[in-house]
Parts: sequence; structure tokens; C-alpha cells
Amino acid sequence: MFEKILENVRQKSPLIHCITNYVTVNDCANMLLACGASPIMADDLEEAAEITGICQGLNINIGTLNHNTILSMLAAGKEANRRGHPVVLDPVGAGASRLRTETAFRLMKEIRFKVIRGNISEIKTLASGSGTTRGVDADVADGVTEDTLKETATFVRKFAAQSGGVVAVTGAVDIVADKERVFCIRNGHPMMGAVTGTGCQLSALTAAFVTANPDTPLEAAAAAVCAMGLCGQTGQKRMGERDGNASYRNYIIDAMYRLTPEELKEGADYEVF
Amino acid sequence: MFEKILENVRQKSPLIHCITNYVTVNDCANMLLACGASPIMADDLEEAAEITGICQGLNINIGTLNHNTILSMLAAGKEANRRGHPVVLDPVGAGASRLRTETAFRLMKEIRFKVIRGNISEIKTLASGSGTTRGVDADVADGVTEDTLKETATFVRKFAAQSGGVVAVTGAVDIVADKERVFCIRNGHPMMGAVTGTGCQLSALTAAFVTANPDTPLEAAAAAVCAMGLCGQTGQKRMGERDGNASYRNYIIDAMYRLTPEELKEGADYEVF
Amino acid sequence: MFEKILENVRQKSPLIHCITNYVTVNDCANMLLACGASPIMADDLEEAAEITGICQGLNINIGTLNHNTILSMLAAGKEANRRGHPVVLDPVGAGASRLRTETAFRLMKEIRFKVIRGNISEIKTLASGSGTTRGVDADVADGVTEDTLKETATFVRKFAAQSGGVVAVTGAVDIVADKERVFCIRNGHPMMGAVTGTGCQLSALTAAFVTANPDTPLEAAAAAVCAMGLCGQTGQKRMGERDGNASYRNYIIDAMYRLTPEELKEGADYEVF
Repeated sequence: MFEKILENVRQKSPLIHCITNYVTVNDCANMLLACGASPIMADDLEEAAEITGICQGLNINIGTLNHNTILSMLAAGKEANRRGHPVVLDPVGAGASRLRTETAFRLMKEIRFKVIRGNISEIKTLASGSGTTRGVDADVADGVTEDTLKETATFVRKFAAQSGGVVAVTGAVDIVADKERVFCIRNGHPMMGAVTGTGCQLSALTAAFVTANPDTPLEAAAAAVCAMGLCGQTGQKRMGERDGNASYRNYIIDAMYRLTPEELKEGADYEVF
Repeated sequence: MFEKILENVRQKSPLIHCITNYVTVNDCANMLLACGASPIMADDLEEAAEITGICQGLNINIGTLNHNTILSMLAAGKEANRRGHPVVLDPVGAGASRLRTETAFRLMKEIRFKVIRGNISEIKTLASGSGTTRGVDADVADGVTEDTLKETATFVRKFAAQSGGVVAVTGAVDIVADKERVFCIRNGHPMMGAVTGTGCQLSALTAAFVTANPDTPLEAAAAAVCAMGLCGQTGQKRMGERDGNASYRNYIIDAMYRLTPEELKEGADYEVF
Repeated sequence: MFEKILENVRQKSPLIHCITNYVTVNDCANMLLACGASPIMADDLEEAAEITGICQGLNINIGTLNHNTILSMLAAGKEANRRGHPVVLDPVGAGASRLRTETAFRLMKEIRFKVIRGNISEIKTLASGSGTTRGVDADVADGVTEDTLKETATFVRKFAAQSGGVVAVTGAVDIVADKERVFCIRNGHPMMGAVTGTGCQLSALTAAFVTANPDTPLEAAAAAVCAMGLCGQTGQKRMGERDGNASYRNYIIDAMYRLTPEELKEGADYEVF
């Protein structure tokens, strides 16, 4: 199934509107191109909804949000909902400031998201108003590990039911769930945390996968998470003894450019509850 | 002649003020450094015209424009005109939203551009108010191919006459024209479309080339298009079997850093009508 | 001592709030990760001070400043002062526009900086209101060379005394001083000037080093300058014949990721007056 999902991305080449932070935006654009999709970035209120209208999917990422772009996120999200386009939310740093937390809440209230993707502390913040965010990385104590897996899976499934969409929590183990089923994914490599924006890139990728596979959002989101993790593994195998996180950043995107549907099928490491 | 044009860029090292999008801005800065020029980015209205004043050329790119930066583009453009500095316009996404189309029109009305560089659908939008823009890439149906070449060349030459400067349309074949002559350029590689911002980089590069060669803007713009395309070819030859669009991005800029005037002269693949 | 300073960065992994330009922000984030620290970027006034509060250090860089982010810089800087967090200032382009110069003055007046890091013309502008800035690079005539070293060292020490913190002037030779002592550093490679943002990265790095070593800000800043220069040297040795400034950018960050405390101790090339 993941094979077909990636084929659809490559064949349909969905145009994805991204309202995203300026830290990792270039990598998000190149990651979308690497998977076969096309990016367009636009965040002024005067054009946000209109740009959404010419796209097939929308990716909202609240890193480096500001009072102007928040309005654009809302306008674009509503337009995407009106048109039935899938919308992905990446609540970067929710829990780290009131502005981010409240913006994430407001976005969830006013927009229906097909997928919400974050680390465990961001998702906990969205679910409960609690949680702590250490910068934009998951709080260590909150990490999803084998020990906390079952518990977290249940939590994510319940939050997905509440949100009405798919929720993806990424960490040492990734959990992707809708209200009924849970994908538990073991792709990825710890060194991905040393590259800024691998989470942002995954959210952009997820928007492309879900847009090209509108009838199977859970599987599409899980496939995106597997694909990103697999590219993290492939890229890591390529690391030479002088390579560090900058080269690794390139190798991950390169790996997505080269990833075949067959390799995704073979390499996807997951179980479904 | 292209040999001398690149030599002038390297020798004069023009300082180029860029008001450009935040998606590809880092690559534009490194591309300018690679060709021997120097970049400065500044987009607040309070300093835009003043920064233009300490530079030798100006590059205006409307990707991720907003209501603040539009005012800065206008102020900087007018200051550059007043001082006789060359100004390049990259109408990213003109046709994709009313804001971008109207901003491009307004810029063209209030500022004299030495060069306008875009894909065919953006340029058609500027020329006629029609045209469709698929994201920031040229609409496939609008692509410049061998079949549509003659027709497009005539169109570009006429639009150049109307705009009073040089117009560069890049695609499978690139056309660079003023009101009298047309350069038809066959450098480049299709994979350049898989790297975000190769068009933006070319516009920045064009600003450097035209600034360092003020008496021959048509030849300077054509040389920039040839140089960028040639670096796309050189970079592509360097691609290993695991390299993808992220490494390619680096290889293109690297190739510009290494490009000698002699190699540009040898590798430039064009005819003049 | 430098050995221990880098060890502290790796061990404490300080979270650094960066309010920085959008040109080089991604490289700053990856450089912080490379050295063992964590980045968070946030520049809206509604969250700036609050984000500062969850971090351990603050890095303010005025490249691509605007009327919104200036207010955020002031708010974040004051909050960092209130909490006793180290604050680094990178006065990018001070002297190039009234806005930048006046903003730098205002920041210096309202915020206590632990370290100010810039090129000689930026620092001269801060010190005297004079100086010329060519783009964001040091004016050639202002370059710190062996000939002007003694004179410059005295100037930097005096300005450090006046500012109440550490001042780092980077160029062909780097000078890092507080009111009493001067580190004169000969690490680095001329080609670093062909990569956009090596100065910005160094400022971010300095914030991490000073934050993790609060009792020895002079030594920590000097260690950061040595580490950055050493990575410039290591990265340069890795350059192949087709590599240019884009690959070099990656190699420098990679080198920081791989840099061991022992290598820093061995490779640091400095004298103290």
C-alpha cells in the first residue's frame, strides 16, 4: 500500500501551499520537490487564501509565527476547508510560549486538520494545555520510547478521535493514529535530531502524501513518516567520517529524491494495532 | 564577449541589494558570492532606499512578498532609478494571485527595470494580464520548447520593446531579448527544476552581471543565463548515484564558484537572431 | 581551558534564543546543533521575552531587521538581562544604514551585552559613529592585518571597557578582548568570506559557548572564535577540485559537528596580551 501511496505523490505531483517558518523553509521546499510534489510559499493575508485556492493541499507550521502570518494561516486554513483540501498542522513549539499555544488552539478550533504532526510535548500541549516544550525539540522526559509506547499510542488515538483527523507523534518511535487504528513506526535515526527542520520537512511531506492520497489519510501519513525515517536511515549509511549534520541534511533530502516505491515498501518498519 | 563579462563581475565585485523571498535567499546570497559579487539583503522601508544607495545594483524578487516589503521594493527601485543603478525584476508567481500580479504591474509602472526575468507564464502575465501560473513553476502548456521557439522569441522581443529593457524567459530553452535582438540559449539541465530557487538565483546573478557590465545589458543578461545553465550542466555531471536535488543545489553553486571566463566562453550554447 | 569550554557546551547543551536575519538563519540553527547546543528562533513581540525566559542564552543579530523585530530584540534583551542570561550582539551592517546604526546604538544603550561580535567596520561604527560598511563585509581598508594589529587590539580593548563586556572583531586576524586582556587569534581561512553567514554562525556559536561557560566569557568567546576558524581550516582541507563555496558551507558545519575538545585545544592558534 505504501508503494502505491508514493507512486501517487510522484504521479499527481500535488502543489502544496506552505505557511511555514523562515528557519527551515528552504529545506521544506526541496523536500517537497524531492518527493515529487511542488511547493509554493505565501504568507501575506492579501494572497494567502487565493494561493490556497490554486493548490491542492496546505501545510501550516507555526514556527516563527507572527501577528501577520497567524491571520494568513487562519484565512488559508478556512479556504482549504471550504474547498475540501487536506490541511496539515505542525504546532512547532506549542507549549513554549503562550502565543504559540494559543495560536495552535485557535487554529484547531477554526480549522479542520487532516493531520496534526508534532513531537510528544507539542501534542500533549494541544491535548491538555499541559506539557513542556524544550525549545522546538521534544522534552527528554516526554520522549516516546519502547517503555511508554502502549500508553502513548492510546493517548494519541484518543487525541486523534477528539481532533477528528490523524495525529502523528514523532520521536524515537513514531506513532500515527486515527480514532481507530495506530501505526507504530520504527524507521528513522537518532542523528536526525541534529539537523534542524527534519520535523518541518516531515510535515510538508505529509501534506504532499495526504493530498495525493485523499481517501487513505492514515496510511498516507504513516507512509510519509516511514519515508522520512527511511531516508534518515539511508542518508546515515552514506555518512563519511568527516560528514556531520550539514552533509546529513543534504543526504536525507537526496535519499527522498532517490526513494523508489519498492524501497519504501521494503524498508517501512511498522506495526498496526 | 561572455568571457569579458564574467571577468568584469569578478574584478568589480558589485554589491547587489536584494529584496527577495525568504525561501531561497540563502542560495541567492551564496550564488552572488560564487560569481564574485557581494550580497546585501535589506527589506525594511526605513532602510531600503538607503541600502540601495550604497550598492551598485538592485534585485527585486516578489516571492513571499508582503505589504511591508512591497513598499520597500518601490522605494528601493525608485532610488536605484534615480542613481542610474540597474534593477532586475523577478516576478515570482505573477499570475498566481492578484497581489503578485498587481504588485508586478505596479513595480513595472513605477520602476524602470534593466532586466525582467521569469518563466513564460509569469512573463505572459506581465505582458497581457492573462497566463496561468502553476505555483512558482511555469505551466507545462506554456513551456518554451523547440516547437514554440520562434513564436515565443517574437513575443519576448516585443515585450522587451514595450518594457524598455531586457526580458529573459527561462525554460527548456531560454530566450533573452531586447527590442532588437534575441539570444536563444540551450544551456541548462531539466533537473534544475527539482531544486528550489534556481530561478531566483539566476535573477540575483543577472543583477550582478548587468551591474558589472552596464553598457551591454542584453549580452550581460544572456551571459548570466548561459553561466547558470552551464553550472547546471557541470553540477549534473558531478552527480553520484546517491545524490539528489539537495546535493545538486550545492553542486550548481560550487560550479559557479569554479567557473572560469574561458569555460563560460567555451560552454555557452546560444544563437542570436 | 578551551577543551573544557567545548566540553561544557556539549554537556550542558544550552538552549539559545536567536533573533536573527532570515538569510543565514538555517545555518545558524545547524551550527548551534553542530556544537552541541539547541536553537530556538522566535521574533514576534508577543512571544520574544517569554521564549527568552525558557532559554539559557540570547543571540541578537540585526541583519534583515525590521520595525517589528527591533521591538522583539529590545524586549528579549531586557528579559535576558533581568534573568542574568548572556546576550550576544551581532551588529550586521551597522554603518550601512541609519536604521542599523541607530538600532545598534539603541540596543547597546538599553541592553547589557556579554559579547559584541562584528567585523572591524561594524565595531568602529559602534565605537565612534564613524566607519564605513561595505555591504555586510568589512571594508577592505578597515581589515585587521598584522600591520594594524597592535593598534586594533588597543582599540578593541578600550571599546570592550566602554561596553562593559567582551568584544570580538573578526577578520584576517581575529581580536577578542575585555577591558583587561586581548586574545589575538590566527585560526580561519580567507575562503570563509565566500560563504554567506559565517559571521552570523560565529555569533550564534559564541552565544552557546558563553552561555555554557558563564564565569569565563572572554575565554569562551575566544574559544568560539578559535573553534569557528579551526572548522574553516578543517573544512578547507576537505575541499575537492570541484567543490566551491556551497560545499564549503557544509564542510564548516560538519567540522563543528566532529570537532573534539582535544582538537580544539591542539588547533587553537592564539596569543594573549
